[in-house]
Amino acid sequence: MAAQPSAKKQRTHPQYELLYHPGIPGRGEFVRLAFEAAGVAYTDTANEVKDGYSTVQQICMNKGTESADGNPPVFSPPALRVPGAGKDGKSALVIAQTPNILFYLGEKLGLVPEDDEPGRYHVQQVALTALDLNNEVHDTHHPIAVMKYYEDQKDEALKKSQDVRENRLPKFFSYFEKTLKFNEKASGGQGKYLVGDKLTYADTTVWQVLDGCMFAFPKEMETRKEEFSDLLVSFYDNIKQESGLKQYLTSKRRLPYSMGVFRHYPELDRQ
Amino acid sequence: MAAQPSAKKQRTHPQYELLYHPGIPGRGEFVRLAFEAAGVAYTDTANEVKDGYSTVQQICMNKGTESADGNPPVFSPPALRVPGAGKDGKSALVIAQTPNILFYLGEKLGLVPEDDEPGRYHVQQVALTALDLNNEVHDTHHPIAVMKYYEDQKDEALKKSQDVRENRLPKFFSYFEKTLKFNEKASGGQGKYLVGDKLTYADTTVWQVLDGCMFAFPKEMETRKEEFSDLLVSFYDNIKQESGLKQYLTSKRRLPYSMGVFRHYPELDRQ
Repeated sequence: MAAQPSAKKQRTHPQYELLYHPGIPGRGEFVRLAFEAAGVAYTDTANEVKDGYSTVQQICMNKGTESADGNPPVFSPPALRVPGAGKDGKSALVIAQTPNILFYLGEKLGLVPEDDEPGRYHVQQVALTALDLNNEVHDTHHPIAVMKYYEDQKDEALKKSQDVRENRLPKFFSYFEKTLKFNEKASGGQGKYLVGDKLTYADTTVWQVLDGCMFAFPKEMETRKEEFSDLLVSFYDNIKQESGLKQYLTSKRRLPYSMGVFRHYPELDRQ
Repeated sequence: MAAQPSAKKQRTHPQYELLYHPGIPGRGEFVRLAFEAAGVAYTDTANEVKDGYSTVQQICMNKGTESADGNPPVFSPPALRVPGAGKDGKSALVIAQTPNILFYLGEKLGLVPEDDEPGRYHVQQVALTALDLNNEVHDTHHPIAVMKYYEDQKDEALKKSQDVRENRLPKFFSYFEKTLKFNEKASGGQGKYLVGDKLTYADTTVWQVLDGCMFAFPKEMETRKEEFSDLLVSFYDNIKQESGLKQYLTSKRRLPYSMGVFRHYPELDRQ
């Protein structure tokens, strides 16, 4: 069991279960950050429960035509299991796809602007764009085939990472900076929040991708700080200090980057 | 103005505007199919309005910190403009990101199971997975850099497309088939609908990706038909016959594939 509900969140929540691979942040981290930022308890099944990964595999990676509890199959982890939220109101709901999980949780965890339909869709718009960047960064070390070793696609990875660093990062960063600037007055400060006047999952999702890029491409990111200081300095540091996140990021629950989406191969960084 | 509201859809809709590049199906096609399947009128701005593409560029590709009507900036088309749905209830709402637009429209167009929260998220789960495949197919001809010519990354494209055809297509197709099989009883037939008992945007989105793959990789897809007949024969043909779609697909509004996401380079197909 991870974060405990904070005093301000009195709403009763089901015992959410994050179903993901053990030992890596990966795409599960976007879901973890949402729970941790909201101060809502969840079970990180593969990391916290005995034989938890076999449960994850059973639900998300089985060969059958059902995930579990009468829910349709899952393409791949992460998935979210929500006891009592299934179709009949009793069984569990199982949903997959990172942005789908975030949209589902957004309102329930208080991570979208309240009573604000446009705001909800703007949060999702920004989060989806950050997840697109996440995929592009993954492809810098696996541009040809996800099932092959990096070493077997290294020549292509050098080319791909150069393009992502030189062309794609600035394009995405410029978009996030414009979004911050658009929201500067509403959020009450420079580089504070991406949508509205409090933390949303757009902030946590963009932050995670930036943090991952800092691990993967430390030289590139250091060089970009001047050009994108609202995003890479103000915003990045602001979000890190948010109550639920600050505690989490220094805890043992925050897993180190290793061989997942964000990998540090010095040759793929700026030379 | 495209499809006219059908008799069964008496609900009043705003005059939706699809903001996308002219002349190609691209990612705009997922949004078009949703409107056409629902029989709800929309304006395809770049294709139907005089100087429409400059409106698209102004809203979705400008250098400022706002898209239009007090909405945050857009990373790239497609976007949806909905008059009267903005934050103040008077101005227009502008939202971007294909799955975000589809989720927004799903309930409004009757393209998700009614009064069924789990069903709505299952539709989005399947649609997001189809859009992931769409991106992977795009990368078969642009594995290194989206801004470079295909000819400048042809060696890498040959490797990437081989992996996508041999490993990724069957993985995705198998997932879609399992989803169809899971839903066989509820949908009332083999290979009928992916979620629930009537057409959803999961169906139109998966269908479009399959159709695009048939254009891009005709030999590969022909060979796969036996292995995945529920998906590539029953489902594919069923959806094509849906009332709103059947008419649309033979109309002039259905744009031909050319140099967008789905491209036919014979050398990238099965040899």
